Amino acid sequence: MTNSGDCLSNNKEIVVIGCGAAGGTAAQFARKTNRDANITVIEKEKYPEYSKCGIPYTISEIIPKISNLIEFSEDWFENSNINLMLNTEVESIDTNKKIVFAKKGNEKIEKSYDSLIICTGADPVSPPIENLFENDKLSGRAFFVRTLDDAKNISSYVKKHGNAAIIGAGLIGLEMADNLNRMGMNVTVIEALPTILANSIDSDMSKIVHEKISEHVTVYTDHVAIKVDKKNENVNKLYFKDNQTDQLKDIETDLLIIAIGAKPNVKLAKKIGCKIGKTGSVVVNEKSETSVDDVYSAGDCTEYVDIITGRPVWVGLASIAVRQAISAGINASGGSYKYLSGVLQTRTSEFFDLEIAAVGPISKNLSDFSTVSGRFVGSSRLSYFPGGEPISIKVIVNRDNGHILAAQAVGANAAQRINTLACAILGNIDVDTFRKMETAYAPPIAPTLDAISIVCDIVARKLKQKK
Amino acid sequence: MTNSGDCLSNNKEIVVIGCGAAGGTAAQFARKTNRDANITVIEKEKYPEYSKCGIPYTISEIIPKISNLIEFSEDWFENSNINLMLNTEVESIDTNKKIVFAKKGNEKIEKSYDSLIICTGADPVSPPIENLFENDKLSGRAFFVRTLDDAKNISSYVKKHGNAAIIGAGLIGLEMADNLNRMGMNVTVIEALPTILANSIDSDMSKIVHEKISEHVTVYTDHVAIKVDKKNENVNKLYFKDNQTDQLKDIETDLLIIAIGAKPNVKLAKKIGCKIGKTGSVVVNEKSETSVDDVYSAGDCTEYVDIITGRPVWVGLASIAVRQAISAGINASGGSYKYLSGVLQTRTSEFFDLEIAAVGPISKNLSDFSTVSGRFVGSSRLSYFPGGEPISIKVIVNRDNGHILAAQAVGANAAQRINTLACAILGNIDVDTFRKMETAYAPPIAPTLDAISIVCDIVARKLKQKK
Repeated sequence: MTNSGDCLSNNKEIVVIGCGAAGGTAAQFARKTNRDANITVIEKEKYPEYSKCGIPYTISEIIPKISNLIEFSEDWFENSNINLMLNTEVESIDTNKKIVFAKKGNEKIEKSYDSLIICTGADPVSPPIENLFENDKLSGRAFFVRTLDDAKNISSYVKKHGNAAIIGAGLIGLEMADNLNRMGMNVTVIEALPTILANSIDSDMSKIVHEKISEHVTVYTDHVAIKVDKKNENVNKLYFKDNQTDQLKDIETDLLIIAIGAKPNVKLAKKIGCKIGKTGSVVVNEKSETSVDDVYSAGDCTEYVDIITGRPVWVGLASIAVRQAISAGINASGGSYKYLSGVLQTRTSEFFDLEIAAVGPISKNLSDFSTVSGRFVGSSRLSYFPGGEPISIKVIVNRDNGHILAAQAVGANAAQRINTLACAILGNIDVDTFRKMETAYAPPIAPTLDAISIVCDIVARKLKQKK
Repeated sequence: MTNSGDCLSNNKEIVVIGCGAAGGTAAQFARKTNRDANITVIEKEKYPEYSKCGIPYTISEIIPKISNLIEFSEDWFENSNINLMLNTEVESIDTNKKIVFAKKGNEKIEKSYDSLIICTGADPVSPPIENLFENDKLSGRAFFVRTLDDAKNISSYVKKHGNAAIIGAGLIGLEMADNLNRMGMNVTVIEALPTILANSIDSDMSKIVHEKISEHVTVYTDHVAIKVDKKNENVNKLYFKDNQTDQLKDIETDLLIIAIGAKPNVKLAKKIGCKIGKTGSVVVNEKSETSVDDVYSAGDCTEYVDIITGRPVWVGLASIAVRQAISAGINASGGSYKYLSGVLQTRTSEFFDLEIAAVGPISKNLSDFSTVSGRFVGSSRLSYFPGGEPISIKVIVNRDNGHILAAQAVGANAAQRINTLACAILGNIDVDTFRKMETAYAPPIAPTLDAISIVCDIVARKLKQKK
């Protein structure tokens, strides 16, 4: 993806804070838009832009080297004539004089800007587990799944037949469960909510996933971890409790993974008066502008409007971060670009050879609407063609006008099927029209009536009956 | 897919002519819509509904038994209380008295109808090859790829290290090439047009396919077969000519496959005065009604409006046939259903492990529009994640409003990616909006910016530059 057409040329000073997916992309698109701008990226970590989403796959060595995660190297930034300052932390910003004050070790740095792009991302959330922290750091063999150093630390404790516990059965928790399981560890997943993937898909859909992953790992839902004790130098004892019965359980763990989510890091943005929204993150518009002049923001530190509900949401998806960052980079460097007016929250993951994808809010977040939903379990191929794989799809529509509001899928090509439904949402296509849309058919590829057509037919009929 | 909601109950007489994908589906949906209707399906062949599209895969035994292609058996029809008359040919129709006259062997049959559904399909087209016919039948070892008997005949002549020639490098020709190649045959494909897949994708896209398949089979484009001679009992000599140089070539063949297309079978429809359109096929509306009262038609004998050009097209895709047949079956039995106002021509195939898909007209059929197009070759995964597969995508948009008119893809999940673009066409989504739409991202599944997003970004920028 490049800029909106023209390449500008003026020596704007652009400072980007943070070199994650959003910061790195913003710098890249600022450069593509404006060949003479002075672009500086300030990053407190010691690594240039790398993929956080790839971390679980380094643990199982599907991605052979952790350093492979670095998508844009220091050389890349140098070749793009972008000044990358690693190990450098921004301490304050003077928005009147338009100066960023930072520190690299003992060195004080001042950097003027015409446009500032804040991409400070999000930090992992800690659960209230007794003894989890020692001197403000995760103790012993407990780790988040957020940084390259987390990846290195986790890898060093992976042990065949060892025991790993994962707190949190969200997408990242289950990706870690799969990859630790691949390395021969006995994995236990502990989730405080009654269902796994509770923020990603509805419980009827997550049930399919729960059944499948239970073949490989032990899953406790509606259980909360309460305490971790050192059994010996290498092994911890983790205590957790059944939310329903209060029954106390414990397991020994060689490795403890904390994956209960993340919260936006808005310290700097807040300090300079950027409007912080209901979700606790920076409010930005389609141009990725904050409420402060010449200050842009993108990625996991921002909130955005959900295209369906019209309400602000904090999402934390790289797919959104990158698209916001394109807008931030182009506009900050003098170009003109507008992102969409809201986000679809198209999302996917894969673990234990099961592809999961969804778009739009989960059912409990659709309470503003009167909805009708339907589910269908089909196959990726007609029955006469061997090798068909199951695909389960759920579609939720607005009862008033039949528009598709959300969809969830588990199984064959779930992500690409959900992309098609995402496009239906974006195009305000009603379920009656969508069910009639021709889907690509060939015996080795997909059935004459794809599962996405059939599930919409089911919903269209329900809709008609209920009217 | 079932009916439009309610289940009717009255004893309408419904007669369906033809038990292909369209006829079988129409009967099925008539039954679902009206539980008491008397439904008769008259089929001149000896088999009930089977998949024509699956035939090539029976040759390589990917589909182990040819009879597996039968999707709805005689028992199924009986259980559905549908009167299936095989080996029965309709000779004439009296539309005043509403009677169908048919013949089964020497037996004369008269069948009254309230609604008649004509699904007479299409017949393979024969090229003007000297000696190809003997007493009005394909001679010796030459076969079409259309019927179960074709499948049986072809299978009986498959021979490891034998030579097969295929006339026609369309989707079916190349599917046959792949499957005969899998059986160890030396395959030569002869195509009269300058490029392969000329009716399915543009030449820049078919070039990718041509290169790939040339690793496995010999392909002559711009060559026309002119004569076949018997060399001995088992082997024919096929003569063909270079269109450019008139140079004559010949090969020996154990098996000759004719796959240059099909033409609608409209004899009966024409006889009773159904309006025949510009493409030579039966004109139907959204309810699958013909111009004759109470006579419906669906599938390969009909033409339909192309949703992009507004012009009638004859397509011959099962995905359309089935959707038209749903409309025909529901309406003919007293229900109410409207198919879309035009077809997208979403299509796909796979051969030599290459997935090909497209939607909308090919470029040469878009001459009514001023267009801008772009191509992109991406990967199914970000570069740090092993196992990414190439995906080439082309998108063609209307220069006046940026709306997506057509798209073609070769490679990883081409079909599902094309479905998403089909939905964009149906939703009148412009390329600027589409490029910004979030696509599902996870390292094992798809990149942050999917190839469908990036190709649209390329076109959006071109569009802006050209304005």
